[in-house]
Order: sequence, then C-alpha cells, then structure tokens
Amino acid sequence: MIAIVAPLLAACAPVPQPALQAPPQVAFSAPYNSNNPFALIVRGTLPAAKVYEDRDVLAFMDNAPASPGHVLVILKRSQARNLLEIRNSELKRLFRVARRIGAAELAGLGADGFTIEQNNGYGQSVPHFHIHVIPRYAGYSRCPASGIRQPLNVLEPFAVALRAALADRARR
Amino acid sequence: MIAIVAPLLAACAPVPQPALQAPPQVAFSAPYNSNNPFALIVRGTLPAAKVYEDRDVLAFMDNAPASPGHVLVILKRSQARNLLEIRNSELKRLFRVARRIGAAELAGLGADGFTIEQNNGYGQSVPHFHIHVIPRYAGYSRCPASGIRQPLNVLEPFAVALRAALADRARR
Repeated sequence: MIAIVAPLLAACAPVPQPALQAPPQVAFSAPYNSNNPFALIVRGTLPAAKVYEDRDVLAFMDNAPASPGHVLVILKRSQARNLLEIRNSELKRLFRVARRIGAAELAGLGADGFTIEQNNGYGQSVPHFHIHVIPRYAGYSRCPASGIRQPLNVLEPFAVALRAALADRARR
Repeated sequence: MIAIVAPLLAACAPVPQPALQAPPQVAFSAPYNSNNPFALIVRGTLPAAKVYEDRDVLAFMDNAPASPGHVLVILKRSQARNLLEIRNSELKRLFRVARRIGAAELAGLGADGFTIEQNNGYGQSVPHFHIHVIPRYAGYSRCPASGIRQPLNVLEPFAVALRAALADRARR
C-alpha cells in the first residue's frame, strides 16, 4: 500500500473481528479453479438451497449468511473470477436476476432493504464470480463478513419463501 | 419480516455496532429528492474529492470511508434511487467506471482487493443510486458500515493517487 493509506487504516482497526485471510487461489493472477465450491454446486456435486435457475444463471442461499435470506447469484458457464475478468453481457445477466432476488427478499421475507456486494481478490472467499444479495432488516446490522455456517435444513425454508415470491411476481 | 427470519437474525445480533437507521427518504416508495447530497455534488454546490468525470458518470471519494481510498460512482443525470429503478444501460455505464476504479485502487493505492457494494432502502444513506468501490488491504477488515468522517484535505491525496493510476492505465 502507498504511504497515505496507513494513517486511515488505523481508523478501521478497532473493528472487533478477526482479520479476513483470503485463500491464495483468489490472487488476481491465478487461473480459474474448476473445482471451486460454486463449480461443484453447478455440477451438482455439492448440494445447495436453490432459489432460481435458468440456462445461464444460478441463485442459491449463502451457507454462512451475513443476514437471514442471503443469496448468491452466479453464472453457470463463465470462468470469470472477478470484476476485472467478467464481460458486460455476463454482468447484465447476473444483475437481471440479482434485482429480482432483491425484490423477492423485500416481498417474500419482509426485508426493509437489500445490499448488493461483490468481492474481488482479498476479501473474496470463492474464486468464481458471484454477487451477494443480502436482505436488510430495520434495526439490525448485517454480519460484517460471513455469518455462522447454517445447515441446508435451515436454509431451505428461505429458498422456499424466495421461490414463492419470485413466482408470485412472475404471475403479475 | 416472516417467522423464519428472527432465529437467524440473532446470529448477527452480537455485532457490536449501533444499529443503522436509514433516513426516511430512502423508503422504496419515496420520490427522488433533487437536493440530496450527491445531487448537490453534481451541481457543484457541495465540494468533493473527484476521481473521474465524464458526460454521464462522476466518481469521488466517500467522505466517511469504510476503508482508505473508498470511492463512490454515480450517474449525473439519473433520478434512480435504487437497483429496482435503474436501467440496464445506466448500470453498464456505472460498472464500466467502477471496474476501472477498482483496478486503480489495486495499482494506485497498493490495495490487495476491492469490494463493490450497493445499498437499497434500509442500509442506504443517500437516495441517489451509487456504487461503492472499497479497497481491501490484506490483514485489515473494512469498517462494517461507514467509517469516520474525513475532511477534504485528507481525501484529496487519495483522489490524486487514483487519478494518476487511471491516467497511467489510459496511456498503456
């Protein structure tokens, strides 16, 4: 980092959470790893609570939600790892779904807002491009990084509520 | 919120920060407020440490950075407040710049990653659509919400470093 960064970094230092350690494969120079967890979910090797799927895009519940109802939106056939690699057409497809998921979090979960997050390099845990859609509830903070890991039987009812909200919106 | 939300909300409750209170104008139903702080920055009424500007897009330093070098990217003439209102063509313009800002944070500030964040409704502080580009430094967390408010003379050197990195990239 350059010299002007350090004094301001101290302003965030009291954050009482362990420093995140990005796994080495998320370095910007690394090649795509086709056995990353999201690639396994796309291939059906790893289970997930799915919310939406079409030819190109898959949305499923984050298994360590930063807030209840936290969804991840990914491309099924892209090898882009981060924003510097993804194509505009791919980003458009992802946001078309992310926007509908956000609306479903408001209507289907009773959220008061939603936060889009997308991490690149340090701070990113899975080296497959993904958009977080994190519901926000008035009076509650989101977890600052990942939350507590939840089993599929806890996540599936959220997927059910979101699928119902998406279907309801599609009918109108 | 629906019943399945509450048990999981407790998992994030220990986060030791004051709950965010979104100002009422960020309600999804409110009209665009043409005197919001970002509209004032576009009109030149409110000062900002500018990083990039073209016909449609303006990027400037967040004055309460979640991490040193935190940039906001906005549209100058859109009245979209959130992701449910913005057009695909507008989103594309914003991300074209956000991606370049992210690369400039890596090259110009020595960041190890960058996080894109975009808040809608609760959790959003200014009711003018904006994309956060937050640099990430290995070993340091970002502030969970906004950071400490910084004066322009602290923010301007970051804008200088980022403008130099953008210019350097444009020359290559």
